[in-house]
Amino acid sequence: MTNQFTAEPLRFGVGARVGVAVMSDDFAEVILGALRDVDPRGLTISTGDVSTWAGGSEEDLLGWLTDLGAAVAATGHHAAITVQLSRGCPGEVACELPGGAGPRVVETPRGRDVGTWAAAEWAIYPLADDVRAGVEPDHMRDIEAAIELARELGTFRGSEHFVTRLEGDLGAILATVVAGWTMVGRSVQHVVAHLSISLNSPSHPHAAA
Amino acid sequence: MTNQFTAEPLRFGVGARVGVAVMSDDFAEVILGALRDVDPRGLTISTGDVSTWAGGSEEDLLGWLTDLGAAVAATGHHAAITVQLSRGCPGEVACELPGGAGPRVVETPRGRDVGTWAAAEWAIYPLADDVRAGVEPDHMRDIEAAIELARELGTFRGSEHFVTRLEGDLGAILATVVAGWTMVGRSVQHVVAHLSISLNSPSHPHAAA
Repeated sequence: MTNQFTAEPLRFGVGARVGVAVMSDDFAEVILGALRDVDPRGLTISTGDVSTWAGGSEEDLLGWLTDLGAAVAATGHHAAITVQLSRGCPGEVACELPGGAGPRVVETPRGRDVGTWAAAEWAIYPLADDVRAGVEPDHMRDIEAAIELARELGTFRGSEHFVTRLEGDLGAILATVVAGWTMVGRSVQHVVAHLSISLNSPSHPHAAA
Repeated sequence: MTNQFTAEPLRFGVGARVGVAVMSDDFAEVILGALRDVDPRGLTISTGDVSTWAGGSEEDLLGWLTDLGAAVAATGHHAAITVQLSRGCPGEVACELPGGAGPRVVETPRGRDVGTWAAAEWAIYPLADDVRAGVEPDHMRDIEAAIELARELGTFRGSEHFVTRLEGDLGAILATVVAGWTMVGRSVQHVVAHLSISLNSPSHPHAAA
């Protein structure tokens, strides 16, 4: 449904927090250079000492995350990138949106391959308290649907304690996670996803995208 | 309540995934050295290429996380540590526990200060689908209670998009997050928390624990 709360991404609290850790003595230049050089698209971006927040549409977020990851990957350094995606709960301690303001329905954003292989661990949290559109809350049902989507997209590699393991092109991994987040968000207002990505790891000597 | 599902931490799925990113050319030795040297206590530990999983009691997890963080901090290198805590949903794609198996009630584990100042971002996700013990699911109520606890413990520094900012001694930050996780877990079976910690950052030149 589209209404005054769901139409505008920032009003609906659509955004990401990203942490980039580059395992090199010149980490500061690599991280700040990547954040500076990547096209911010239509996003509002604020960089802090723990992570960088970006708010805006799901499509712009996926494009920016993909470009940022590609820029870090291109340095060849081993890096860990963590991404938290959230939608449906803008504000600070309390959601500024009333329950029932959502869900927000968007087309699945299309990603792009970047030519770098990555391994990642992913978790998605549908935070539904009550019945919406006649659908009973069932967070494991929604999580399983997102994992099934990852299987279809070819990035699913296995289930681990508390997370799903994804492997493949860095861009395909990011596209999978954004697709699952927006899919579950078609029936649940407040949906959060967490992703931890390992790039250029010495544990992946034979990796190829 | 104590029953066959809640008595044993591993059976209840009590555990953590930890990612340690050291921003130095000698990252591999620092990370593997810290993981190797820290007392595993009673935990079951498995190290992967993206993160390390540890399963066991809440008290052992807090002790191990504190020792691990202290070991990384003592190297003086800038590091990012990410922690995912989970309880109430063992297994892989699907929870192996039936709904209603929990909650598991434990005393709040006591932490220890380690003498290193840190900044962190924290989020807690109560994943309750239905009424337990006569209490209606309300995930924002539970999140707000955890944040109030952080205020009482003195580590709360502010609310940001999607996360709560914590600052203070690294040990106090970890103790806060474990306390919030076990507190919310007194009424909700499946509770997950995520924490991103920044240690020895060049952005914190005047920091003192």
